[in-house]
Amino acid sequence: MRAKKFYIQTKKETSSTNDIISYQLMIKAGIIKKIASGIYNYMPLGMKILRKIENIVREELNNAGAIEILMPIVQPAELWKESSRFKQYGPELLKLQDRHKREFVLQPTSEEVMTDIARNEIHSYKQLPLILYHIQTKFRDEIRPRFGLIRGREFIMKDAYSFDINEESAILSYQIMFNTYEKIFNKLGLKFKAVSADTGSIGGSKSHEFHIMAKNGEDKIAYNDSSKFAYNVELAEAPNLIKQRAMPTQSLKEIYTPNLTKCSQIAKKLNVFIEKTIKSIVLTVSNNENIKIFLLLLRGDHTLNEIKANKISILSGFRFSTKEEINKYFNCNPGFIGPVNVSKDIIIIADKTVNNMSDFICGANKNDMHFVGVNWSIDLPEPDFVADLRNIEDGDPNPYGNGVISVKPGIEIGHIFYLGTKYSKQMKASYLDRNGKNHFLEMGCYGIGISRIMGAAIEQYHDEKGILWPKNIAPFQIVICPIGFNEDINIANESNDIYKKFTDLNFDIILDDRNIRFGHMLTEWELIGIPIMIIISKKLIEIIKLK
Amino acid sequence: MRAKKFYIQTKKETSSTNDIISYQLMIKAGIIKKIASGIYNYMPLGMKILRKIENIVREELNNAGAIEILMPIVQPAELWKESSRFKQYGPELLKLQDRHKREFVLQPTSEEVMTDIARNEIHSYKQLPLILYHIQTKFRDEIRPRFGLIRGREFIMKDAYSFDINEESAILSYQIMFNTYEKIFNKLGLKFKAVSADTGSIGGSKSHEFHIMAKNGEDKIAYNDSSKFAYNVELAEAPNLIKQRAMPTQSLKEIYTPNLTKCSQIAKKLNVFIEKTIKSIVLTVSNNENIKIFLLLLRGDHTLNEIKANKISILSGFRFSTKEEINKYFNCNPGFIGPVNVSKDIIIIADKTVNNMSDFICGANKNDMHFVGVNWSIDLPEPDFVADLRNIEDGDPNPYGNGVISVKPGIEIGHIFYLGTKYSKQMKASYLDRNGKNHFLEMGCYGIGISRIMGAAIEQYHDEKGILWPKNIAPFQIVICPIGFNEDINIANESNDIYKKFTDLNFDIILDDRNIRFGHMLTEWELIGIPIMIIISKKLIEIIKLK
Repeated sequence: MRAKKFYIQTKKETSSTNDIISYQLMIKAGIIKKIASGIYNYMPLGMKILRKIENIVREELNNAGAIEILMPIVQPAELWKESSRFKQYGPELLKLQDRHKREFVLQPTSEEVMTDIARNEIHSYKQLPLILYHIQTKFRDEIRPRFGLIRGREFIMKDAYSFDINEESAILSYQIMFNTYEKIFNKLGLKFKAVSADTGSIGGSKSHEFHIMAKNGEDKIAYNDSSKFAYNVELAEAPNLIKQRAMPTQSLKEIYTPNLTKCSQIAKKLNVFIEKTIKSIVLTVSNNENIKIFLLLLRGDHTLNEIKANKISILSGFRFSTKEEINKYFNCNPGFIGPVNVSKDIIIIADKTVNNMSDFICGANKNDMHFVGVNWSIDLPEPDFVADLRNIEDGDPNPYGNGVISVKPGIEIGHIFYLGTKYSKQMKASYLDRNGKNHFLEMGCYGIGISRIMGAAIEQYHDEKGILWPKNIAPFQIVICPIGFNEDINIANESNDIYKKFTDLNFDIILDDRNIRFGHMLTEWELIGIPIMIIISKKLIEIIKLK
Repeated sequence: MRAKKFYIQTKKETSSTNDIISYQLMIKAGIIKKIASGIYNYMPLGMKILRKIENIVREELNNAGAIEILMPIVQPAELWKESSRFKQYGPELLKLQDRHKREFVLQPTSEEVMTDIARNEIHSYKQLPLILYHIQTKFRDEIRPRFGLIRGREFIMKDAYSFDINEESAILSYQIMFNTYEKIFNKLGLKFKAVSADTGSIGGSKSHEFHIMAKNGEDKIAYNDSSKFAYNVELAEAPNLIKQRAMPTQSLKEIYTPNLTKCSQIAKKLNVFIEKTIKSIVLTVSNNENIKIFLLLLRGDHTLNEIKANKISILSGFRFSTKEEINKYFNCNPGFIGPVNVSKDIIIIADKTVNNMSDFICGANKNDMHFVGVNWSIDLPEPDFVADLRNIEDGDPNPYGNGVISVKPGIEIGHIFYLGTKYSKQMKASYLDRNGKNHFLEMGCYGIGISRIMGAAIEQYHDEKGILWPKNIAPFQIVICPIGFNEDINIANESNDIYKKFTDLNFDIILDDRNIRFGHMLTEWELIGIPIMIIISKKLIEIIKLK
């Protein structure tokens, strides 16, 4: 490609320095162009990157035996009602009506249509196992689209679906896809981590996310490389930090703590470690008219993991209690609640670490008052339940080996789920086995954020001058930057020669034959981030390898 | 590819024999699968075909210097309001609201977004000429989706847009795209005609359609191969069939024609050729409160071309008059109207042929009465206007040469428009010329129905056994059908050998290694329509070339 025939439009200004760096760089380099909140045009450079990512994903999936199809973007609401996700999915599912007032949705994902295909097309065990995929535009009506391509509304996703005769075979399909994902992300040139993850709204019982570790990640990843511990924090089991409950050494004392509602404030005031304090969180679970109040206890420096809490069956569907409820059940304001002297109707659930604490500090259920020197079985009964309630923290000991856990932000670029029969049961997709017996299909689903990878890769690879594309997804592998192409016939000839040689070797190369200042040319290509730059001047041919 | 690893699901039953043949065959061959009216899944065979069509289109556009981008499917309504098409486009434009109640449309085409890109990105004549394109899903909410992929609601279209400094250069871009389209359709293996066409709702002043001639076409194409006459009937100038008006030989006579409202009925009753009769059509043009009535005259066997009528400035925006209006202005029912003795307020426009008729027959403006022996200037004044009002007909003399015109149905697979400054003016997209002077961009737009081509190709190429894909878009180029692959090791070896040879030569080949009856295998592949079939049996290796 010659630059004169291509379309290069870098910008001086960028959107806003508040934006994530990948977005700033993509706008500046002319890779994408915003058209509405979370909706973008992919400009020529962007399109080349997108196609390269797409082709690598396609090639590896085909190698793994997956078969490409294409499902529509506009999908009938009936299928989504059948799976119950028409409501469950919430307002991110964009609903619309056609001219005949029939309801449709813009697909945010395709489990429903895929299961509908399966129930119509798969009849016999002979057709299994089967993995189908498509690469298609998706729409999720995010309430606050952000981070450019990382959380857009319209985006391109590869979603694959596996169908198997039983769990064993389904797990094998899952493993094939897991391995394929590793191949794909390696080929894309990304540094990534595969971590165990929650299954969320998709459902199912086993799930891995693939993350790019980058400081702007929205997820938190807990890992320890020496022991292969790797989890999304939402799922990672947090270790019990106190192996055994120590003998009490203090007796209960009420102290005046005016306006001190936070554990950190109390610890500072009393000049003790925050690890001596307990945080009390009040939750409400309502079943029809019936309201049940729960008191959750965490160590003062820990944070509640809502996903873990929601998985405790008695807490399922909880909400945080209102100030009014707290006043009613604890006779005090939030900030002064504690587990001592509470009504029998209130169920107390202690985090594992809290259960082993002694001589601790907690709210006294009186405004502006706290207790110190509190001990289980002496000042209050043992907790009703003990559970893992908290998020694992950076520096926690590794629950499954030596060393400590690192918690770092990650950007999810892929997610795989073993679904079991969740959708096939709901939508009645079954097959006949060897003996003519009917079974529900075992399913898995597997996503890769094709367009998100563009943003995520930049988060991982950039410097102060611009983007540093990995070679397989760079818009061009090589750029030739001649000094004086339009003035000096020798420079032009040399440039053309080199251009021809690399083109003949099937490199994706661009020759910058534009009549622009060399400094400007350099700045532009450093911003765009082509891995190899060949500078041709009278004195030298210099090859600069950016990455 | 081995058939066991691929997905082949032909169906015994088809949808309905009322459906167009391409749709029946695609459903039966398992190429597509309907999910809602005008919305389809592309199954693995369909996806392979789609990708091959897409790749040929992309390759030729890239060769022509066009540059690929990607514009979103969900587009802000504001841009469509700016171009006035938010209303003008009508109910085919599917409108929707996001969760914040902001208005969007699903793109049926992308002139608006493209012009928005241009006005933001193009500043200087140095950036021109430029052709950008994208291959993307479109949605048009057809009131009655039909003909399978030929008139679906969700479909894949390639749309390209050219930007030039002036008309001369724009026409050059148009010509480049015209030539590129010929290359594309030839490479796709289609027999097609490029015809001059109306610009319709897209606008602009020059336009060509590319049609596949097929009996199920919705368009009518008028052509004469020896003179290169090729037009969509909506645009084709109809010849004047009577060179000179003959001298009158009859005098006017009123005759009783009870209930005979059609020219064919009158001609039959009077035992004359229908060519002696005149058809009278009443149109209303309303401007606010002001109503104007027009009487259009066509020869009895001709049909009104509404597009031509609409282009006559005084008829612009016409509608057919109501029965009440006809009664009011002609004192009789439709079917007995004629041009004799009409009010001066009614403007009479005669088709060119009608203007040269003599001794003709027409309604008498009295119920159940007609006039015979009518002559211009004797029985009624000369018409107010003479114009080309009718559709050209199969068998009409060639207006531009020898021979006669053929009128045959065609399926539009491509359409190119020279737009001029229609959109750039409306949306203020301009550039600075060499002298720093501002001009509106000259634009062209160019569409190819990627998914429609699948259906259209089948309409052109099929026989009683199934589809006959042209070799470049067949899902596989070659299929090996062994008799007894799973029973006879020699057959298996021979099949594998041949498979390997062709694979090494980069043929897209499938080996049918499934354990199914040979007759069934043959029927399936003949239905699917692979161009070359290699049958391997004990006695012979037989190569059957379907196309």
